[in-house]
Amino acid sequence: MAEVPAALTRVMEELGRLPGIGPKTAQRLSFYILRTPRESVDRLAAALVEVKARIRFCDECFFIAEAPRCAICLSSRRDRGVLCVVEEPLDVLAIERTGEYHGLYHVLHGALSPIDGVGPADLKIAELVARLRREPVSEVILATELAPLGVKTTRLAHGLPVGGELEYADELTLARAFSGRRAF
Amino acid sequence: MAEVPAALTRVMEELGRLPGIGPKTAQRLSFYILRTPRESVDRLAAALVEVKARIRFCDECFFIAEAPRCAICLSSRRDRGVLCVVEEPLDVLAIERTGEYHGLYHVLHGALSPIDGVGPADLKIAELVARLRREPVSEVILATELAPLGVKTTRLAHGLPVGGELEYADELTLARAFSGRRAF
Repeated sequence: MAEVPAALTRVMEELGRLPGIGPKTAQRLSFYILRTPRESVDRLAAALVEVKARIRFCDECFFIAEAPRCAICLSSRRDRGVLCVVEEPLDVLAIERTGEYHGLYHVLHGALSPIDGVGPADLKIAELVARLRREPVSEVILATELAPLGVKTTRLAHGLPVGGELEYADELTLARAFSGRRAF
Repeated sequence: MAEVPAALTRVMEELGRLPGIGPKTAQRLSFYILRTPRESVDRLAAALVEVKARIRFCDECFFIAEAPRCAICLSSRRDRGVLCVVEEPLDVLAIERTGEYHGLYHVLHGALSPIDGVGPADLKIAELVARLRREPVSEVILATELAPLGVKTTRLAHGLPVGGELEYADELTLARAFSGRRAF
């Protein structure tokens, strides 16, 4: 009986750890890797190592950064009195594309989901509370689901479909949602 | 406007080259990578590099190998007069698990599919023909779709669902398909 060589088993296992990649997909990807020229595979491996070496999350807002603070937190042109709370780094990119928002962000890195075992401690919520205590924030815009925190909080208004994900909204819709935001 | 750092763009692009991984999935995987401890990502990168360094395809049958010839082709216990032609290396593993087959294999690395632009030249068909001319093969078992080649050819018989993929068949079904094979 033919055995799967250890190096092949290992790559299947490692690929299978990625979210949304089950054993069958990991197997197919591994065979694809075997058929692919070595230079392409080396390029993928190098890109993985490099992104970990160069990119991190901002210590302040948890958006992607190449230094302890991200470019948005470091910018002198942003309104430091307004904080937009989002679930994912991709949401920041989507909002930035509208060109309508000039405040700072806070990325929670997920959404509360008791059914998936995601509680407040799994998100950057304590960091948000600490930040609101520390910083001169006068307005928090919740571009996510979250209970009010005792500061003036607004939600993105009309334009976003209920239950829809923010990153899939087009720029005009998102821009309108910003301009039409309302206090709780 | 926030830019995606080059290292992050690069890993998204490289992951997006993998089959079945579109831009959205590549994006999500890339952010997962950013959240994952560096050691885990290094392990994945190392596994990718190592599998290319250690594993190749057999020069004879194109099954996975750690040397120019695979363990099956090198074995003195296999019947060299029987050749089972399969589409994928995974098919060899599935057949080996039945313990019912003791001949050699020939892996085509795909199936003819004009609609996907996969012609005979994309598969190991010329290699199969050359092998049949060169080797003392008295029986070819087609565990795939392929026109007869002028040798005695049999197909896997009853047991395999029509249109079903070989690797999903259970071992008993596959064993029966072997024992019940019929000449064209």
